[in-house]
Amino acid sequence: MMKLKKVDAQTLLEFTTEVLKSFGYPQAQADITAKVLVEADARGIPSHGVARLAMYKRNVAGGSARPAAEPEVIHETPVSLSVDGKHGIGPYISKFTMEKCLKKGLESGVCFGSVKDSNHFGIAGYWADMATSRNMIGMAFTNTLKCGIVTGGRERLLGTNPIAVAIPRDNKESFLLDMATTTVAHGKIEVYGRRKKEMPIGWAVDEYGKNSSDARHIEDLILSKEPFGGQLYLGGEGEMLGGHKGYGLALLVELLCSGLSLGTWSRYTFQGGEGSGTAHFFAVFRLDLFGDAEKIKKHVDSILTEIQNSERAPGYDRIYVHGEKEWGNRAVSIKDGVPLDAATCTLLEGFAKDYNIPSLFN
Amino acid sequence: MMKLKKVDAQTLLEFTTEVLKSFGYPQAQADITAKVLVEADARGIPSHGVARLAMYKRNVAGGSARPAAEPEVIHETPVSLSVDGKHGIGPYISKFTMEKCLKKGLESGVCFGSVKDSNHFGIAGYWADMATSRNMIGMAFTNTLKCGIVTGGRERLLGTNPIAVAIPRDNKESFLLDMATTTVAHGKIEVYGRRKKEMPIGWAVDEYGKNSSDARHIEDLILSKEPFGGQLYLGGEGEMLGGHKGYGLALLVELLCSGLSLGTWSRYTFQGGEGSGTAHFFAVFRLDLFGDAEKIKKHVDSILTEIQNSERAPGYDRIYVHGEKEWGNRAVSIKDGVPLDAATCTLLEGFAKDYNIPSLFN
Repeated sequence: MMKLKKVDAQTLLEFTTEVLKSFGYPQAQADITAKVLVEADARGIPSHGVARLAMYKRNVAGGSARPAAEPEVIHETPVSLSVDGKHGIGPYISKFTMEKCLKKGLESGVCFGSVKDSNHFGIAGYWADMATSRNMIGMAFTNTLKCGIVTGGRERLLGTNPIAVAIPRDNKESFLLDMATTTVAHGKIEVYGRRKKEMPIGWAVDEYGKNSSDARHIEDLILSKEPFGGQLYLGGEGEMLGGHKGYGLALLVELLCSGLSLGTWSRYTFQGGEGSGTAHFFAVFRLDLFGDAEKIKKHVDSILTEIQNSERAPGYDRIYVHGEKEWGNRAVSIKDGVPLDAATCTLLEGFAKDYNIPSLFN
Repeated sequence: MMKLKKVDAQTLLEFTTEVLKSFGYPQAQADITAKVLVEADARGIPSHGVARLAMYKRNVAGGSARPAAEPEVIHETPVSLSVDGKHGIGPYISKFTMEKCLKKGLESGVCFGSVKDSNHFGIAGYWADMATSRNMIGMAFTNTLKCGIVTGGRERLLGTNPIAVAIPRDNKESFLLDMATTTVAHGKIEVYGRRKKEMPIGWAVDEYGKNSSDARHIEDLILSKEPFGGQLYLGGEGEMLGGHKGYGLALLVELLCSGLSLGTWSRYTFQGGEGSGTAHFFAVFRLDLFGDAEKIKKHVDSILTEIQNSERAPGYDRIYVHGEKEWGNRAVSIKDGVPLDAATCTLLEGFAKDYNIPSLFN
């Protein structure tokens, strides 16, 4: 295990905000972006945490993100809005959209938000879960950089295209499913490559569309300009273990995000030039559309509790429901500090020096 | 390959309607149920076709389905309705709910339908696709008989819990994703058992929660009164290939269906006594909530067409998008007749004799 340093959440939030301002983010854009990054680390999802500052810096430098751009509502009904993100900052655009969705949703019962020309929005679950404290179900979807291979294909066409859904639960943290539709996060393939470990079959295919366990080769393909070879979707290659279903979920997310927003689809995101073209889709709806919200929350809780208490397979100490691990991590992080690995600490030290921000570690 | 007989779709529809009436279904209940069963066979999904008549007969005889029960709306807003199915016929209750959803959705832009105490509703995709001819997106979800094992568990708690989403596409049949959240349909395990073939790892676990390739043993477990051992969700056992994600999707479907309707969850459906307790969730929303519906349909079509025309892996002649195979099968079935296997033909001949209905095969 890598040694982790623990940093007070509020201190890390302030530091991250300062770094983002140094990249050229206005205060409001920096505030929400820092919040979402620190939340990811606090919840135990470091792949989407402050280590992403390096990517966010490159996105500003390379022109895919315009920090000061203000999103604009381009179409609106009592139950929907379509937003042009103007190539601005993903978390800022997402907050703008979700806050309007929640307001409309409280009035109309439901609201959808369709977004084009945004950027990386951090953990999808952050946006979905904004609904739950208002007794609403929340959903968030996004397309991404292309990385995945469809059933029968060999070109990278779709992204990791995550699905996040949050459902309120009585007296406890929400049910929060937040999953890439690929078998694994891209970061896992990087780690296997670095450690020269063989990948399990089902994570990726090579340039001929054949199963591969060679993480370094797959990494090379994904980083190359050629479009062949990449990650697999849930269920792996072919149809035997349901790979066509995982591909279907990724394609569904794509159509909800880039299809409805008339935005750029994953095949053409991050092509250089202005903007990445990332598109999102959000939905919120009230529990009391269906009856007594308190009764529904109790019923949801009883189902989840029974699953948690059901018989375990040998080797498992616990059966989790979705979100439970992350909410548990968050509580520990708030109390004891947010864990950061050595590489991330080095990255943050570099930013402290470059931008003359007081170090987190002195 | 088993030899298939082909039967004219209209003739099969009329025959199936008569059989259902002989089970005690009133005309309207028989009409829609026959329609959904014949559609399944026509689309090449025989697991949900007229072969299900045997199960539907048992459900009436065993008291889980009450053919003459009329569903009742028990809660309603301009964008939602909650329906008590009164243990009636699944397709009749689903048609009742979806028609009201479509009417409200055309007025309000969106509508959700929550249903408790229904029964098997046939192919989920039939209900989702009712929306597309109205330029709306449709979604349909259902819980089922418990059959699946959650990550870390060994008890059957959740059903096959399918997800169906239909999205209109310009000038072509809709994108129609219709997938069980289990790795495979239960019928596949039956077939492997009958043929004494080893199942792939990732379909099922035994009574200890361990991967199993023994289809006969798994079938015995699933049919036994003990709750241990059963099917796996997309991604298989553990987290290595994303099994926790498949489990998450099944649980999401469960919470949308039985959670929101205050209905019975999969663990307790089909317990004998009155009703099966099956619960559904439906959603429809208009494309023009987000802008020009025609432009959106064209954009959706362009994404799907590019995927279909992308580079194939060796061994594949074609890259499919979801629904394409089924719509293709349907066109052939309407023209040349609906294919039925020998066992299904024998079943139908038996009903013809029992109920004095003219045979399909004379």
